[in-house]
Amino acid sequence: MSLRYVLLTGGIGGAKLALGMQQAGLAADTAMVVNTGDDFRHLGLCISPDLDTLMYTLAGRVNTETGWGRADETWQCLQNLAELGGEDWFRLGDRDLAVHLLRTQALAQGQRLTQVTAALCARLGLSTRVLPATDQSVATQVRTTQGMLAFQEYFVRQRAEPVVQAIEFAGAAQAKPSPEVLQALQDKDLRAIIIAPSNPYLSIDPILAIPGMQSALQASAAPVVAISPIVGGRALKGPTAKIMQELGREASAVEVARHYQPWIDGFILDHMDEALHNEVEALGLSTYCCNTIMRSLADRVDLAQSALAFARSCPQRAA
Amino acid sequence: MSLRYVLLTGGIGGAKLALGMQQAGLAADTAMVVNTGDDFRHLGLCISPDLDTLMYTLAGRVNTETGWGRADETWQCLQNLAELGGEDWFRLGDRDLAVHLLRTQALAQGQRLTQVTAALCARLGLSTRVLPATDQSVATQVRTTQGMLAFQEYFVRQRAEPVVQAIEFAGAAQAKPSPEVLQALQDKDLRAIIIAPSNPYLSIDPILAIPGMQSALQASAAPVVAISPIVGGRALKGPTAKIMQELGREASAVEVARHYQPWIDGFILDHMDEALHNEVEALGLSTYCCNTIMRSLADRVDLAQSALAFARSCPQRAA
Repeated sequence: MSLRYVLLTGGIGGAKLALGMQQAGLAADTAMVVNTGDDFRHLGLCISPDLDTLMYTLAGRVNTETGWGRADETWQCLQNLAELGGEDWFRLGDRDLAVHLLRTQALAQGQRLTQVTAALCARLGLSTRVLPATDQSVATQVRTTQGMLAFQEYFVRQRAEPVVQAIEFAGAAQAKPSPEVLQALQDKDLRAIIIAPSNPYLSIDPILAIPGMQSALQASAAPVVAISPIVGGRALKGPTAKIMQELGREASAVEVARHYQPWIDGFILDHMDEALHNEVEALGLSTYCCNTIMRSLADRVDLAQSALAFARSCPQRAA
Repeated sequence: MSLRYVLLTGGIGGAKLALGMQQAGLAADTAMVVNTGDDFRHLGLCISPDLDTLMYTLAGRVNTETGWGRADETWQCLQNLAELGGEDWFRLGDRDLAVHLLRTQALAQGQRLTQVTAALCARLGLSTRVLPATDQSVATQVRTTQGMLAFQEYFVRQRAEPVVQAIEFAGAAQAKPSPEVLQALQDKDLRAIIIAPSNPYLSIDPILAIPGMQSALQASAAPVVAISPIVGGRALKGPTAKIMQELGREASAVEVARHYQPWIDGFILDHMDEALHNEVEALGLSTYCCNTIMRSLADRVDLAQSALAFARSCPQRAA
């Protein structure tokens, strides 16, 4: 069973595009390579927020108002945890807990995260391959003016408010891409690798920090195309623009293109940023403009199809 | 803060008597020593069914229809576990899960079960000392005609249906009573030690199997009095009579008295078994008859007060 597309993705924004690819009928042809830098252990549970957001989105079980967690969720456990003095800053719903319990148990029994995820996806009826970028621990840590914070401490508990000075990926040097990810990237029939409009620093960099990942992308038979998460100088979602400013970078699509430039072939700008076309091309990247703001399901499908069509037409740069 | 009473107890039946003691105003004077032989690890969680039943009962949060679990419980997590292929034979409610998560986390952080339990009881507003019999693992295992079964496999998953050949307590030889339990039993002001009408073989024997426990009971300043869980040849609750028959013993209160005889001073029979009075006295035990069937809260209080009054009047046998 040959693969045609690979999507590198983080959380909510990436899951929207992934849903577009599934809706476009590409589920069985696609592998989703998912950020695991957000993963953490909480209350003894192994939690993989980006994997869960993607699984729930593709399975039609996500809370569409928040973009994360389960639809029709209840919070009895969390409420009782709080009453008993437990930590309740990370919102764990009753339905959601089932996934964390099963994952934690399976990992404790020695299964790889990739295997656990495949089993959960099968139970949820998904035909897309949802692949954690790695089976090892790569933990995103945010150096802030308040000190070093574990990712969820920064992102959820402190609502991404502390000023970011640097982002690090603990364990990345010892990690490697999973065999399934390497196999997907090495598939000779691969036609496109898409980088979702996720946060480059928090969602995509943890994937790229895994030794061997960048070279596998460069060695792939398919062009690599990234979609800008910055439109009109603002982030589509989350703290991307804020972090860019804190890191002393301009919050612009061009800056994102520059960040990805060493290992992508093409870059997709929103119509709104059409004027930046030449600047991005000047980086040596093929460039394409379309609507990248995914409000409706049709928007998701359109962006997925546009990105794949652009990628297939995109010349690969010499390695 | 001196103790006056100690109750050795198992699950639902013992919790009824414990509630009677609390309702009689004796909570602050009493230590409840609780069976941990039912404890097990399930879905990665450390579950202590008898401790939870007692805590929930004393806190007025128990499901009064079943006698275990939380009132107003919901089952979203369990239902989703089942959908995802997880085990759902042990009924874990959403509210109940909070306790298991906190306990598991605290034990993993190196706290003793006694400390974890004290913290949970404090949060639940209990003034009674609820003491696990031991901080070490003592796992009840049931040898049956279908092979050796872990306690919950036998009791819950197989509904106590397999024929029992023997009951063993794995880890008991390496366990010891907790310091808090020893201190309670050694309190010089102690006036009575009561054995609840719990299952002698499954709920009380795991406590007695802990090295040092029987000698601590015998060395105590207070008389030890047991209440028969068999009334009119039938168990008040659960499989006690069935197990006695399978073990080749007569299902009678006299047989229970004989089982406890080496280390108790007095025995309480139900009115219905008044005719057995002489047979129990012939074992060298003081004997008392009263209503032991706890239907109402008043029944619970009455039995608690009767048992304590009898114990205080009960001569201690020479060690």
